Amino acid sequence: MSIRGFGSDNFSGVLPEVFRALEEAAFGHQQSYGNDEFTEKAINDFRKIFGENVEVFFVYNGTGANIVSLLAFCRPYNAIICPETAHINVDECGAIQKQSGCKLLTVPTFDGKLNIGLIRNHLHGFGDQHHSQPIIISLSQCTELGVIYTPEELKEICDFAHANNLYVHMDGSRIANAIAYLGCNPLDITAKAGIDVLSFGGTKNGMMFGEAVIFFNTSFCKDVKYIRKQCLQLHSKSRFIAAQFSAVLKDDLWLTTAAHSNAMAQKLANEASLIPGVRITQEVQGNEVFAIIPREHIESLREKYFFYPWNEDASEVRWVCSFDTTENDILEFTSLLRTELSK
Amino acid sequence: MSIRGFGSDNFSGVLPEVFRALEEAAFGHQQSYGNDEFTEKAINDFRKIFGENVEVFFVYNGTGANIVSLLAFCRPYNAIICPETAHINVDECGAIQKQSGCKLLTVPTFDGKLNIGLIRNHLHGFGDQHHSQPIIISLSQCTELGVIYTPEELKEICDFAHANNLYVHMDGSRIANAIAYLGCNPLDITAKAGIDVLSFGGTKNGMMFGEAVIFFNTSFCKDVKYIRKQCLQLHSKSRFIAAQFSAVLKDDLWLTTAAHSNAMAQKLANEASLIPGVRITQEVQGNEVFAIIPREHIESLREKYFFYPWNEDASEVRWVCSFDTTENDILEFTSLLRTELSK
Amino acid sequence: MSIRGFGSDNFSGVLPEVFRALEEAAFGHQQSYGNDEFTEKAINDFRKIFGENVEVFFVYNGTGANIVSLLAFCRPYNAIICPETAHINVDECGAIQKQSGCKLLTVPTFDGKLNIGLIRNHLHGFGDQHHSQPIIISLSQCTELGVIYTPEELKEICDFAHANNLYVHMDGSRIANAIAYLGCNPLDITAKAGIDVLSFGGTKNGMMFGEAVIFFNTSFCKDVKYIRKQCLQLHSKSRFIAAQFSAVLKDDLWLTTAAHSNAMAQKLANEASLIPGVRITQEVQGNEVFAIIPREHIESLREKYFFYPWNEDASEVRWVCSFDTTENDILEFTSLLRTELSK
Amino acid sequence: MSIRGFGSDNFSGVLPEVFRALEEAAFGHQQSYGNDEFTEKAINDFRKIFGENVEVFFVYNGTGANIVSLLAFCRPYNAIICPETAHINVDECGAIQKQSGCKLLTVPTFDGKLNIGLIRNHLHGFGDQHHSQPIIISLSQCTELGVIYTPEELKEICDFAHANNLYVHMDGSRIANAIAYLGCNPLDITAKAGIDVLSFGGTKNGMMFGEAVIFFNTSFCKDVKYIRKQCLQLHSKSRFIAAQFSAVLKDDLWLTTAAHSNAMAQKLANEASLIPGVRITQEVQGNEVFAIIPREHIESLREKYFFYPWNEDASEVRWVCSFDTTENDILEFTSLLRTELSK
Repeated sequence: MSIRGFGSDNFSGVLPEVFRALEEAAFGHQQSYGNDEFTEKAINDFRKIFGENVEVFFVYNGTGANIVSLLAFCRPYNAIICPETAHINVDECGAIQKQSGCKLLTVPTFDGKLNIGLIRNHLHGFGDQHHSQPIIISLSQCTELGVIYTPEELKEICDFAHANNLYVHMDGSRIANAIAYLGCNPLDITAKAGIDVLSFGGTKNGMMFGEAVIFFNTSFCKDVKYIRKQCLQLHSKSRFIAAQFSAVLKDDLWLTTAAHSNAMAQKLANEASLIPGVRITQEVQGNEVFAIIPREHIESLREKYFFYPWNEDASEVRWVCSFDTTENDILEFTSLLRTELSK
Repeated sequence: MSIRGFGSDNFSGVLPEVFRALEEAAFGHQQSYGNDEFTEKAINDFRKIFGENVEVFFVYNGTGANIVSLLAFCRPYNAIICPETAHINVDECGAIQKQSGCKLLTVPTFDGKLNIGLIRNHLHGFGDQHHSQPIIISLSQCTELGVIYTPEELKEICDFAHANNLYVHMDGSRIANAIAYLGCNPLDITAKAGIDVLSFGGTKNGMMFGEAVIFFNTSFCKDVKYIRKQCLQLHSKSRFIAAQFSAVLKDDLWLTTAAHSNAMAQKLANEASLIPGVRITQEVQGNEVFAIIPREHIESLREKYFFYPWNEDASEVRWVCSFDTTENDILEFTSLLRTELSK
Repeated sequence: MSIRGFGSDNFSGVLPEVFRALEEAAFGHQQSYGNDEFTEKAINDFRKIFGENVEVFFVYNGTGANIVSLLAFCRPYNAIICPETAHINVDECGAIQKQSGCKLLTVPTFDGKLNIGLIRNHLHGFGDQHHSQPIIISLSQCTELGVIYTPEELKEICDFAHANNLYVHMDGSRIANAIAYLGCNPLDITAKAGIDVLSFGGTKNGMMFGEAVIFFNTSFCKDVKYIRKQCLQLHSKSRFIAAQFSAVLKDDLWLTTAAHSNAMAQKLANEASLIPGVRITQEVQGNEVFAIIPREHIESLREKYFFYPWNEDASEVRWVCSFDTTENDILEFTSLLRTELSK
Repeated sequence: MSIRGFGSDNFSGVLPEVFRALEEAAFGHQQSYGNDEFTEKAINDFRKIFGENVEVFFVYNGTGANIVSLLAFCRPYNAIICPETAHINVDECGAIQKQSGCKLLTVPTFDGKLNIGLIRNHLHGFGDQHHSQPIIISLSQCTELGVIYTPEELKEICDFAHANNLYVHMDGSRIANAIAYLGCNPLDITAKAGIDVLSFGGTKNGMMFGEAVIFFNTSFCKDVKYIRKQCLQLHSKSRFIAAQFSAVLKDDLWLTTAAHSNAMAQKLANEASLIPGVRITQEVQGNEVFAIIPREHIESLREKYFFYPWNEDASEVRWVCSFDTTENDILEFTSLLRTELSK
């Protein structure tokens, strides 16, 4: 179905710059499976941002990035600590259980954010043969509820993790939105905070397909190429993922587009919050807005501007802005919302 | 590395028609995960070719297509019968073992072709709790050695399989080359022959990424959408796989390009076979040429026109033609070959 | 370490009747892997209790019984609903995740008992490719907190489950204690209540090793023998599990011993509850007593009569009685407890 | 079915000494899951034979011992090199594929014995992301065809393996028969030869249940306790496996009984080879005899003295002797054989 809306950032197509990059890579011969010029260049582009020593692996999608990240650290008797709302827990059809055999130790949170206190509850049973052994913490930046860890919050979690012989994975399918919000250097919330491995999002930020797994802790990297292949995440024509990444990394395009999405979400929240009957439920920091609106209006609104319910019991919905959300989208939708709710 | 050559059909980029189709799909909003207009159209395009009742699932790559196909039929205590040369056995880093837990029962062949006699050797242990239970035969069309089953050969295998309560999977990463060679209707080597499920190749025939899994036997389809998701093969922006397929299926483009690859391979084999020291080792039916050439010349040749060794002990090499192989490629390479071998 | 105590029912050895049965089976030749006279007899013994149509599979241990039970119903994209306290969730080192690839949907409870309201919270996402599909409920009888479902409670859960296309597994490692407590027919809390598959405990009730998986719903049984073998649960000398079961099933020995364990637990709870500083935290129905005692006395007590802490934060401990717990054990321990707590 | 025969060494019951040991362990309290006095003693008994530094893990059965051994070394992208006849390849219903996700690289042999030349064929593709990475060699001592590696043969294989960064696992379900035949020190074919991990057989040599996994290379041992638990191989009442092992290890009982089985097999082969129509097909070194006999007599013989066909096409059968095979068994059976074949 093709209507504009706030369903997800993957309802959008691709950035014009991405498309032009694909065109430049489209023809002629290149070696396959990563031995091509585009892949080499894109890896270097990532190293300019995240440091010369990171290892970079391109994969197809966000679930794939999370799985490849986590499998590097986990064996089946390990446990992964994550928020209840984590994408790996809720939205990936049990891919992590199937692919890793591991147990998830999930933590209830208000806004998708972990903290030391919440993690500590799961730190027991070490060395007990009856218990899955915690090995890694997986957190999402932005969280699935649209809020963003500060560099200090991340560092505190990572320090605590490392002190307890745990590693930290960041599901960064929306990491660009977080950096744009924080106005920080990408290193501040990754390498410097102590993140061991990062799922770096591409598709949700204007790419056609493709994500990157970036290892800051490279001691578990040796076998990742086999993990990627066995998990069906190795693209033969690797140039086409790589070329897109070079395009979005160039001149901070990834951050500019994320800043735009964030700004649109901010505007949407501001406008919507003025409408009687609308209650914004989470602080809007990234490109997502969570709001409670009267149940009886939801269906009718969704038919005109598509979006998803979030918590049906609470009549809470989610609105996601993306690189191609326009001010006009915001105006039309909030106007519609106002009209609808006044009925 | 970017030099022309005969390394693989995935060394080529994309067909111009594919690129234009991506452009048409590139912008604007579409629902994700397959609920978009492009996906609906492409599924219908496949149904026009393979019948109204087939079920079609888009995936990222060939290994993914094979895994999704096979997992629909297999549980971990099952066995899969295939030729020793099968891509699932040799080139997928054990993905099938990891993803399915199944055992492969491999059959040695000369040219990658199964037949009833070879399969029958593995048909024992049914009902014995100590033995993996054979459930499906996986064959490749074209085979990994470039030869092609006739419709009759396939029907004989499928009839035998079904009579023994086995299913048949076709790894059709090069099915277009087979149909172009046989000059048959696509149904003749699939539905009419009795194939249960087909990995339909896209990437090797001029697409940027994307393959299709086509179920002729739809009784195992109910849960395939979960299998696809858990195996990390569900693309959020599904339109971009779908649009490419619609482009290659239109006006038989997929068959025209395959016919071109085949013709180039034929020409290459013809020219090469005239050169003293070259022995073509398999009948050239699709787009691949296998040849023995003097060992001492291989490296020097590969540096100028890239290709892969096939059987190092036998000094056998593989040359693959693709949609963008030109007559000039053939002339230059065979001229080079002639010069090199006369040294 | 060999001291008497209340650590677990698997701290005890074997019933004298079990030992004599092993002796009768110990010598002479029998076919292996279940094709022996003892196995045939024991299966019939089970059928006399649970009905002629049940299918019975012997396995090594309780974790094995749970895994074989659940794997018959689950594929990796399925989810299993269970209480947070379930043995499969807490005490089996993630065996269910590794062996099945499935996700557990855990439910917090006070006493380990599920009910319809708690289950209903997890009944969503059916048909959604992003969500693990709930397929089976696993409940424990007795629960891990020593309380017991009535036949009516079980029937209500099973009816609800079946109405929602779910199956029900009973982890009955202590089912004998439940039946002895309820004074009901074994069918009342299994077949008649609607249980689909039962892990029938042996080891905790006086056997040396061995458990049974009993399928009331036999439509998923066809491949269980392969599942059992692949999960390493097929014993070659099957006679030795079978002979033990025939011994405990004979003349209701299993129920007599369970009634004794229950009575001992009751006595222990009664005596202990009279001691100042002891608070019994769960109703004592089976053979387990949960109690809060002053933290500073726990270690000293455990050194003389062994038992495990249950909830360290709450200073709660668990005392388990077994077939060989004596009145003297109770007297000595409660006397020790009284002395210790009065210090 | 209970008739004497040569079906398998697991058709026998238990050694009297084993039974007495079980009796001594049968009653009273012991901690569970390996924290008992019997387990401690049995581990020390193993260390007296195999060295103070070995790590010993008790498991339920032979398949379990193989799986726990191999999982310590393998991740799913690894490959395991073994003979085609290996128990892990032929007789365990694909347990290794399910439990490890690994690929088996099988080697055809005449008598089940690997050698360097056969192994070398599989040593390629190292570092290639498309290929399962060989990590360990699994060999059987005795082989499944009843022949026995010399210490020198084993050392050659292990040296070669280690030089190629591979480990070596010995499936020693019949290791006692091998040591009895060779008359060597147990260390000669294990630690001194370079074996990394050993499945030490108990059940086939007169035990009721239980095997041991012995790690000579302890660098992969840290997590084995979790692997054992997740693979359903941890026995709660560990004392009952341990006590049996202490009994068979005492005064070299395991070797005396194996010597007896071997002698019986030798006698059977000698007698049978004198009968016209019988051809012994493998050198008889352990407790197994392989023979070709006229097809039309097999069924009638099996009804009176049970045994299994081995290779039905070749009319080859297998006769296994065990600790309780008597001279009378040999006389009766060979007399029957002579009569039958003269019909």
